[in-house]
Amino acid sequence: MRIGVFGGGAWGTALASLWAATGHAVILWARDPQTVAAINEHHENPARLKGINLDNGLAATADPARAADCDAAVIVVPAQALRRATDMLAKHLPAGIPVVLCAKGIERETGLLMSDVAGATLPGHPIVALSGPSFAADVARGLPTAVTLAAADAALAADLARRLSAPHVRLYASGDLVGVEIGGAAKNVLAIACGISDGLGFGASAKAALIARGFAELRRFALARGADPETLAGLSGLGDLVLTCSGPQSRNMAFGMRLGGGMGVAKALAAGGGICEGAATAPVLVRLAENAGIAMPIAAAVDAVIAGRTDVRGAVESLLSRPLPTREN
Amino acid sequence: MRIGVFGGGAWGTALASLWAATGHAVILWARDPQTVAAINEHHENPARLKGINLDNGLAATADPARAADCDAAVIVVPAQALRRATDMLAKHLPAGIPVVLCAKGIERETGLLMSDVAGATLPGHPIVALSGPSFAADVARGLPTAVTLAAADAALAADLARRLSAPHVRLYASGDLVGVEIGGAAKNVLAIACGISDGLGFGASAKAALIARGFAELRRFALARGADPETLAGLSGLGDLVLTCSGPQSRNMAFGMRLGGGMGVAKALAAGGGICEGAATAPVLVRLAENAGIAMPIAAAVDAVIAGRTDVRGAVESLLSRPLPTREN
Repeated sequence: MRIGVFGGGAWGTALASLWAATGHAVILWARDPQTVAAINEHHENPARLKGINLDNGLAATADPARAADCDAAVIVVPAQALRRATDMLAKHLPAGIPVVLCAKGIERETGLLMSDVAGATLPGHPIVALSGPSFAADVARGLPTAVTLAAADAALAADLARRLSAPHVRLYASGDLVGVEIGGAAKNVLAIACGISDGLGFGASAKAALIARGFAELRRFALARGADPETLAGLSGLGDLVLTCSGPQSRNMAFGMRLGGGMGVAKALAAGGGICEGAATAPVLVRLAENAGIAMPIAAAVDAVIAGRTDVRGAVESLLSRPLPTREN
Repeated sequence: MRIGVFGGGAWGTALASLWAATGHAVILWARDPQTVAAINEHHENPARLKGINLDNGLAATADPARAADCDAAVIVVPAQALRRATDMLAKHLPAGIPVVLCAKGIERETGLLMSDVAGATLPGHPIVALSGPSFAADVARGLPTAVTLAAADAALAADLARRLSAPHVRLYASGDLVGVEIGGAAKNVLAIACGISDGLGFGASAKAALIARGFAELRRFALARGADPETLAGLSGLGDLVLTCSGPQSRNMAFGMRLGGGMGVAKALAAGGGICEGAATAPVLVRLAENAGIAMPIAAAVDAVIAGRTDVRGAVESLLSRPLPTREN
């Protein structure tokens, strides 16, 4: 296949290199000319995947038209930048080419899922979501990884999953686009709470309890939006939540750890390079949940911390010592 | 309350000290006279919770009759030793006193859950299970922890959960004894697979995928036995699975890491002091699943590794690269 990857971050670069190595013709579009030059001349992305040799067959470009001349377009930009990317692609992408979305979040101003944003801005293109537990560095180093590829058209998902799988990176097809997208969006918010707990020194038991209770609220919200419970308990829901909460390699977890360690919100965001998907998604996720009458106490606590309405210790302690119900859910 | 705690391991000691500190009259029965003496004279359990000061009010004894003179008996012995403990208690425990089980496993010879073993050997005593994500050291250090207390009699579970909770250790009541027990038993087996993956150097993405797929098979098995899906996604199922797989502080995870690192089964078991709940439970869990026609590929791989029927690398690689289904579950 000819694959256009849009976005020169760690994950976009790792995927582009992976697919080039498995025999696809891949062109990576990146905004930053230095990244483009480094990939083309040195087969490296020093700003985002330092020290990892990229496949020699991977080409980079700053010209979206060149990358858009493809059989599948893969968009790997932050969630809040998706609309800008799809607006750009709309001018270049041939009709009917499938678009694979890797961003995990909810558009802040509109409350739309990524597939809704792409569907509105790229009419006529089948929309696919790639999501699951995957650190870019693991994929780039050849470590085994399993993720989900979802589309409303399950046959398309199955076909693309087969073509885009590699020996060490397996893509599993799903027809549950909404379930995959909500799992990815919500887990980033919940990971901030787990990071705060770690940053406060609360221990592994507390974090495990937060993950279990966080998964319960992710599941409640997603089921209300029509997700399949099997999806939520799978790679793209539970698996990704667990990975994101496993340590500071996740930006969202690292952001929470800085908050838990006493850093202010603005400074903690800036220390992460300004991109924290969960911080952007928290307020809109909580608003959507409130409008639907769904309890998401952990997401709400994260939102309250980010908005400065509560302090981190009070927020996490209250989550772990709520009044005793007769059942835990 | 007067509480008799039976078992002088790390978890029994931590619980006994916690309850003594919250005002209960607690007597800890331990088999080892040195442990009894160290707790009574130095308020410490140097063999199992080294360096942690236990509550001064905690008394220890090697006389089961003395600890059995209580309002609630809490048994904290390895799963395969439960029957010996309940046989011992049957001679001493006053009629009708509730028995709280902390062991997580399935009796190897009989295939019985812990509550079935206790129910058969302690007739007339209400059986309760305490389970959830909790490292003994976290509880002993005062770090926040949330666990589940389950009984067929939900009102009893609610009453005991209220009495046995402490400010930093919250017990949540459940009426789903089977769900709580199976979650605890199966997660130890699955943690061995995660440990093998870590021991092989397979990375965080692989482990997260194994946790998600492991949870799916735990859930399948437990639902077939009548468990409530909410229990499985809660503290005692998912929460405990996540904690156990989080690092070598878990004996099961540590055992798997040694296997993944190339150590033989016998040596890896011995290096963990001979107790690895998951290794004892794996064959019986897999047998029960096979008899019920339930697919548990991860548990089966762990069983095959322990029985010497497959090597660790082949076992884990096959789990992460199974043929592509059209849906991931």
